[in-house]
Amino acid sequence: MNCWVNGVPGTQLDVFDRSVQYGDGLFETMRVRRNGIRLLAFHLERLDEGCRRLHISGLNLPGLRRELKRVAAQQTDAVLKLIVTRGVGARGYRPDGRERCTRIVSLHPLAVPAVARSDAAVRVRLCRIRLGTNAALAGLKTLNRLESVLARAEWRDPRIWEGLMRDAEGTLVCGTMSNLFVLRNSILSTPLLDRCGIAGVMRRWVISQALAMKFKVVETRIGWEDLCNATEAFMTNAVTGVVPVASVRDGRTYLRFDEHAAARELMRRLELE
Amino acid sequence: MNCWVNGVPGTQLDVFDRSVQYGDGLFETMRVRRNGIRLLAFHLERLDEGCRRLHISGLNLPGLRRELKRVAAQQTDAVLKLIVTRGVGARGYRPDGRERCTRIVSLHPLAVPAVARSDAAVRVRLCRIRLGTNAALAGLKTLNRLESVLARAEWRDPRIWEGLMRDAEGTLVCGTMSNLFVLRNSILSTPLLDRCGIAGVMRRWVISQALAMKFKVVETRIGWEDLCNATEAFMTNAVTGVVPVASVRDGRTYLRFDEHAAARELMRRLELE
Repeated sequence: MNCWVNGVPGTQLDVFDRSVQYGDGLFETMRVRRNGIRLLAFHLERLDEGCRRLHISGLNLPGLRRELKRVAAQQTDAVLKLIVTRGVGARGYRPDGRERCTRIVSLHPLAVPAVARSDAAVRVRLCRIRLGTNAALAGLKTLNRLESVLARAEWRDPRIWEGLMRDAEGTLVCGTMSNLFVLRNSILSTPLLDRCGIAGVMRRWVISQALAMKFKVVETRIGWEDLCNATEAFMTNAVTGVVPVASVRDGRTYLRFDEHAAARELMRRLELE
Repeated sequence: MNCWVNGVPGTQLDVFDRSVQYGDGLFETMRVRRNGIRLLAFHLERLDEGCRRLHISGLNLPGLRRELKRVAAQQTDAVLKLIVTRGVGARGYRPDGRERCTRIVSLHPLAVPAVARSDAAVRVRLCRIRLGTNAALAGLKTLNRLESVLARAEWRDPRIWEGLMRDAEGTLVCGTMSNLFVLRNSILSTPLLDRCGIAGVMRRWVISQALAMKFKVVETRIGWEDLCNATEAFMTNAVTGVVPVASVRDGRTYLRFDEHAAARELMRRLELE
């Protein structure tokens, strides 16, 4: 494993960094391929928006972009994780505005199960734990991820690829590590992420492609009944790409999808990206 | 500053500790006095409950208690902060169950503003940012504290001691770093923390005292109108203790409290604790 903290090789961080104390920061998980970092511009734009909304200042985006490209250049297929924290601070929640942000860059091997059968549709389950809603954090990939941790801890069966998460009202929001799309009558719907959830870069890419594919794309509230009425469903994730859903399980109820044409076309387009 | 990571003096942590990656852990902030750590049993009980609910295993509570007491023995008046994380893990939200929890113990000087006028009633404001609700995390002092960070960043005026936070429905929940109590007709009410908020150890102590003080204590939903109808209000915090509220401001609306008898009696009792 290769890791750099503020550009210096190493894996040690000050315990008074606000990521440790409060989860006060953001992260990006990127797919490295032979030709570079996939959707790098989208990753950096989301990070930039997150820094703006959390009032984390001092990030040198052009310098960061160069650093990421330099690290990725050593690889043909890998996962590149970037953490940006508010930096080291004094005790107490209030940032004093003089913190200098910390960046942690790490390279990881691509997990085999995530891509071994990249053309296969996956099994998904419904998670019990609900997502809290907070418009101030909605859409951001913050380091406050306990809900995702508890959701992912709900199952161990390796045949289940993902868990779908709902908000307190029961509306579907996203997977523990991916976004959801459902298709019906040429309308591609994905949950509106104005109250919770992470706005994935692969979600953004799919939305950008769908117009060219003659789909109407809507961000809206999606319930279980909408999933039942859909002809196709797929999940998206920056590392894995577009993943067709074979079935969704809610307790003893199974919902099966046999149609995967839209996902397959998106996967084909992603290969050319 | 004095700091120990897993009992060893130092301030460095592995960046792959899950506290850094996901805020996957808990903390306690304790008041050290000449005669030891105040309400230590309550702190350890809350931590133990948090570990149970987050499925963090392997914490040696008797050993931790001895470590905390040994560290505190050097001090007459200080703040002792303890962080317990799930430990170092591989990439991915799912804990594999083999993580070994990390403990970080640090001693800090008592911040002067917090106690300089310990008998003075304080000014409180209403925060704009709302608390997301999640029963799975409610009451716990987890390391996912971005809502508290953003709430505390809403004001800089040092004359305002605390900000009151509401849930999405507008119900009052707690301060950014304290709990709320309101008194009316010998009924002492404090927000029910079944959906969000941190169940403070000083809140627990106040509830335990109130019976002896002939108050009826109820945990319930408290709205702005309940605050308006109260004769007295105070906040509680493990470090600062019981803090009478002089006023609460919501935009251009000020709500003043002139009566502080219950808070003063609790402060007197806390001195004897």
